[in-house]
Amino acid sequence: MIRFGLAGYGYWGPNLARAFGGTAGARIEMIADMSPPALQRAAQNHPSARLTPSIEEMILDPAVDAVLIATPVSTHFDLAMAALRAGKHVLVEKPMADTPERARLLIEEAARRKLILMVDHTFVYTGAVQAIAGLIDTGEIGDIYYYDSTRVNLGLFQRDVNVIWDLAVHDFAIMERLLKSKPVAISASSAGFLRGSPENMAHLSVFYDNGAMAHLNVNWLAPVKIRQVMIGGSRKMVIYDDMQTSEKVKIYDRGAEKDGTEADIYQHMVSYRLGDMRAPATSPKEALVTEAEEFIRCIQTGDQPLTDGASGLRVVEMLDAATRSCRMRGFPIDLLTLKEAS
Amino acid sequence: MIRFGLAGYGYWGPNLARAFGGTAGARIEMIADMSPPALQRAAQNHPSARLTPSIEEMILDPAVDAVLIATPVSTHFDLAMAALRAGKHVLVEKPMADTPERARLLIEEAARRKLILMVDHTFVYTGAVQAIAGLIDTGEIGDIYYYDSTRVNLGLFQRDVNVIWDLAVHDFAIMERLLKSKPVAISASSAGFLRGSPENMAHLSVFYDNGAMAHLNVNWLAPVKIRQVMIGGSRKMVIYDDMQTSEKVKIYDRGAEKDGTEADIYQHMVSYRLGDMRAPATSPKEALVTEAEEFIRCIQTGDQPLTDGASGLRVVEMLDAATRSCRMRGFPIDLLTLKEAS
Amino acid sequence: MIRFGLAGYGYWGPNLARAFGGTAGARIEMIADMSPPALQRAAQNHPSARLTPSIEEMILDPAVDAVLIATPVSTHFDLAMAALRAGKHVLVEKPMADTPERARLLIEEAARRKLILMVDHTFVYTGAVQAIAGLIDTGEIGDIYYYDSTRVNLGLFQRDVNVIWDLAVHDFAIMERLLKSKPVAISASSAGFLRGSPENMAHLSVFYDNGAMAHLNVNWLAPVKIRQVMIGGSRKMVIYDDMQTSEKVKIYDRGAEKDGTEADIYQHMVSYRLGDMRAPATSPKEALVTEAEEFIRCIQTGDQPLTDGASGLRVVEMLDAATRSCRMRGFPIDLLTLKEAS
Amino acid sequence: MIRFGLAGYGYWGPNLARAFGGTAGARIEMIADMSPPALQRAAQNHPSARLTPSIEEMILDPAVDAVLIATPVSTHFDLAMAALRAGKHVLVEKPMADTPERARLLIEEAARRKLILMVDHTFVYTGAVQAIAGLIDTGEIGDIYYYDSTRVNLGLFQRDVNVIWDLAVHDFAIMERLLKSKPVAISASSAGFLRGSPENMAHLSVFYDNGAMAHLNVNWLAPVKIRQVMIGGSRKMVIYDDMQTSEKVKIYDRGAEKDGTEADIYQHMVSYRLGDMRAPATSPKEALVTEAEEFIRCIQTGDQPLTDGASGLRVVEMLDAATRSCRMRGFPIDLLTLKEAS
Repeated sequence: MIRFGLAGYGYWGPNLARAFGGTAGARIEMIADMSPPALQRAAQNHPSARLTPSIEEMILDPAVDAVLIATPVSTHFDLAMAALRAGKHVLVEKPMADTPERARLLIEEAARRKLILMVDHTFVYTGAVQAIAGLIDTGEIGDIYYYDSTRVNLGLFQRDVNVIWDLAVHDFAIMERLLKSKPVAISASSAGFLRGSPENMAHLSVFYDNGAMAHLNVNWLAPVKIRQVMIGGSRKMVIYDDMQTSEKVKIYDRGAEKDGTEADIYQHMVSYRLGDMRAPATSPKEALVTEAEEFIRCIQTGDQPLTDGASGLRVVEMLDAATRSCRMRGFPIDLLTLKEAS
Repeated sequence: MIRFGLAGYGYWGPNLARAFGGTAGARIEMIADMSPPALQRAAQNHPSARLTPSIEEMILDPAVDAVLIATPVSTHFDLAMAALRAGKHVLVEKPMADTPERARLLIEEAARRKLILMVDHTFVYTGAVQAIAGLIDTGEIGDIYYYDSTRVNLGLFQRDVNVIWDLAVHDFAIMERLLKSKPVAISASSAGFLRGSPENMAHLSVFYDNGAMAHLNVNWLAPVKIRQVMIGGSRKMVIYDDMQTSEKVKIYDRGAEKDGTEADIYQHMVSYRLGDMRAPATSPKEALVTEAEEFIRCIQTGDQPLTDGASGLRVVEMLDAATRSCRMRGFPIDLLTLKEAS
Repeated sequence: MIRFGLAGYGYWGPNLARAFGGTAGARIEMIADMSPPALQRAAQNHPSARLTPSIEEMILDPAVDAVLIATPVSTHFDLAMAALRAGKHVLVEKPMADTPERARLLIEEAARRKLILMVDHTFVYTGAVQAIAGLIDTGEIGDIYYYDSTRVNLGLFQRDVNVIWDLAVHDFAIMERLLKSKPVAISASSAGFLRGSPENMAHLSVFYDNGAMAHLNVNWLAPVKIRQVMIGGSRKMVIYDDMQTSEKVKIYDRGAEKDGTEADIYQHMVSYRLGDMRAPATSPKEALVTEAEEFIRCIQTGDQPLTDGASGLRVVEMLDAATRSCRMRGFPIDLLTLKEAS
Repeated sequence: MIRFGLAGYGYWGPNLARAFGGTAGARIEMIADMSPPALQRAAQNHPSARLTPSIEEMILDPAVDAVLIATPVSTHFDLAMAALRAGKHVLVEKPMADTPERARLLIEEAARRKLILMVDHTFVYTGAVQAIAGLIDTGEIGDIYYYDSTRVNLGLFQRDVNVIWDLAVHDFAIMERLLKSKPVAISASSAGFLRGSPENMAHLSVFYDNGAMAHLNVNWLAPVKIRQVMIGGSRKMVIYDDMQTSEKVKIYDRGAEKDGTEADIYQHMVSYRLGDMRAPATSPKEALVTEAEEFIRCIQTGDQPLTDGASGLRVVEMLDAATRSCRMRGFPIDLLTLKEAS
């Protein structure tokens, strides 16, 4: 039985408490939140958990084996570091930290203490993303040419982070899971239409070392909600529409090929393939439960989780580079130099 | 009666012949195409037109008052210039020319000779774009925050122009019509996945002097066909979906506003407006017929057409800047300097 | 403060408990269910309610002012009658009873004791149905020509009632609210494809005294879930699609009219109107909360609720007539004779 | 080379002329239409065909081998009979005749003279219907439980036939192709909302001898255009949506099964299967061309065409029975008695 302490019972914390509380081998031992109404709600839903307004107290409690951090981004580094130093395994809400440097320090601390450090990139554990990952792993899609995501809606404007840190973070985590090649540069542009609020619209292009390309369209000020990813491969293409209640993933046996040889350049023609479409049944299991099981398994075995600190860091590096590119109207930021310099 | 000569009876030429041939006050006098099968088709559909394999002969024929150019982009400049020098009014297929410099030379020639020079940006004359333009002109949409277009499909790969010159050209022309502010910079990225073919996927961000932003997602290698534009305004938002057979334009009474004063910065909250959606009935009149009437009217009155040479030049400047930005992975190209330098 | 006793904490009971428990002026006093696991769940979610395995005990408890009945259809009559005889107001799950005769007995008992008898036809209290009712009341739709509903999905097969009593009941209740004219006959056909299960597919046609017509397509064995109602009016037409997350109601300014006079019979032509479409913002308030408020208000004032016993009876009469017509392959059942005989 | 004479160059005739004119082994020899403007259009599009205002003259012309009849329904019998008596093969527009008796007389005449009599049920030759027929023939769908069609739109109101003869005729022809069991009864209801016009809305239920059921919802006064058929089978289910530009046919690996034995009646449970969805690529070949090839092949070989007179008669019998049922508000009409009596 692994005993979890939860920091933060605001918007996302209740979901973590519910998922971990309902998973075999886990127990919600303590819940910490500075807000009295939040603690009251926690008491109602988790009568057997101990409650405290002090996150520090929870972190240091000897009955807590692992800490779940669901507090604002700006607090992630300090709380996760304190938990690691107290010898606790850590699952931290996305994004892992507010700078790549701090994300790196957390990884080092966890490695030094042989503790599990995992990032809560929930989308990676959905049945849809798992199904797509399976299609890519078996080679059915072929080489990935592009990943093109539209993730827009009306609201919720955040106060402390811009739309990239709020929405693009999901795509970066999914791309970490799906794309095998190495991102080498990023160009991004953004705009903010409510004075005094962070940028609410951004477009990000990511260049990969094998010629693949990713693009993300994120916006808090769109008339309708769209959650659609197109993935182009050399063999097949995929549309992943998370707004559908069923058939979220569609695989199209479609593509284009060059005819003729290269010598024969002026004769070249492109031929198109228009085959069947298939929507595989995807696992209806709740993503957070799959994620909770992964964290518990890794604590027990010492394995690195699928969304470990290293992948969380790469996501933060992309968020950071994208935000800097936006300041310069799309000026491309070299991701390799960044990594080598670090 | 204005007598038209048509250069090129390939993919688009037959549409021009049909639209102009069916418009009051116009007659298709001559059709020129180097290809014998094309001329044969022209003979069948336009038995009263004179046919010739020589475009030059048609241009110089004294019975031709105005020339319609529907030939490949690389020939636009030479043919349009020859027609203007022969004293003929000119309608040229989009894009107007393959470089901004050549577009400028055409404008100067037409101005010197007091001839009408018009660019065939057909989308500008559709009922849908006209309806949106009307909504903007009356102030119903408010200030335009952004124009965000997705224009993707499978095929048709072009040999001589990349996807920007083939598809983004439509959006640039529509933006010319709808957006009142001045574009100041462009950042674009692209990729080509079929070796030896032009780039087939691109993402373009355009920055405007008033803070507005436009974004274009164009792709020849997408699993499905999408033609969707979202327009965000300070009062309302629009979705223009050209794949719908009816209700192409939807107006959403939705938006977000900052509450409180700016001094009160830490208390600021964003409130959302979620009102009705309305899909106005749009004119079912064929865009090409409206366009033909505009050309005829301007020849008769000497007025500048809605899609005149100047607007055609601005479109070519954007296409040219976007293509150059792509060579540098999104490096922003200053559009103002360009114009001042010219 | 009105104190409610809930009979049945299975599929629907928890929703009633939550809605009434969260409404001002109401308290969940007791919850009764024969199943120990159901009582355990009730204890967790409603720690302040008293629990009992005996519905009879709850009904007779002097601290209970009104009873909510969420048990199987076959028990509705006996439980509702017992509650009324104990002097309690009653809200009974739909359908009100399993025969028209029993529904009538409940109405008489409630009238005799001046108690409120209400039927839980939740759909009538949704923002969408309220919006449509408003459009009809103001005359915007004109005379109602037809109501045409498709309500199909895969599962859940019921054991004790057929698909008509499970799904068509919703449409009959909505029609009760929206259609002002009197139903005079019903023709229905059905089929069952799983041996030993009730009919899982049915089509029902209802004829009204003013020439209007309603049609219901209900099915538990459809590949996809559809919840779509088309309403044709002399002025406008409506589509109500309950599967949409927004824009559930769309109003089309479309229709057809006869041109010319009737004398002029051979010259008659039909002209079509193709105007705007509008999707009004509908109330996001939860239907069950609106319904709870209505029950509470009627208990306090003595008013008849919108979905009172009389309307519940008319729904049961339609269900009963439809089921009988099905036994005779669509043989039309006269609804007026029925009523007069009663 | 088979030489065709076309009777009627109104709405549908031009399509027949184009399809047959463009098919190998066929030539449009003559076109007959009483209307001078129609003949003028025919002259423009088919310069090599002989034109005449007299259908009789065309039918009797020795250079005509086979006659295509695209005139109003009320004239089908007389013209087809005249053509058969003149020794010509006949393709007649749907529906084959205005009464079952007349359809039968045509079949007898054609059989007596060993001529091909074919009915133009175009939908049967579409790639979509052919694909579904293939799925049924291979057993992939299993036993057909139901065929449920929605075929509604705004307009075109017909003057001489009601909506059943105009729209349901398509479904009856498709059902003829797809359903192997025998229809035994029909119950239908209809309404007309424009005074003096034929019924514009109808719902038809068809009962089959093996327990299968078909239902058709047809309407000229609907706010949107829907062309959707659901087919439920014991193994899989199909949605055929003719309004989609691609993926018209979707096959769902979904269904329900009874668990347990029948003895075990109170324990019975239904289990659901929720597998993949697949949209097969369907033939893009134009249906009319496939149909023209079928007619030509049968003329050459003497084979019975897929949509021969016998199947055309069964369609007319259904149309006739449905219309009679409507007069009696859904009173079921026995189809077997009809056939035996005939």
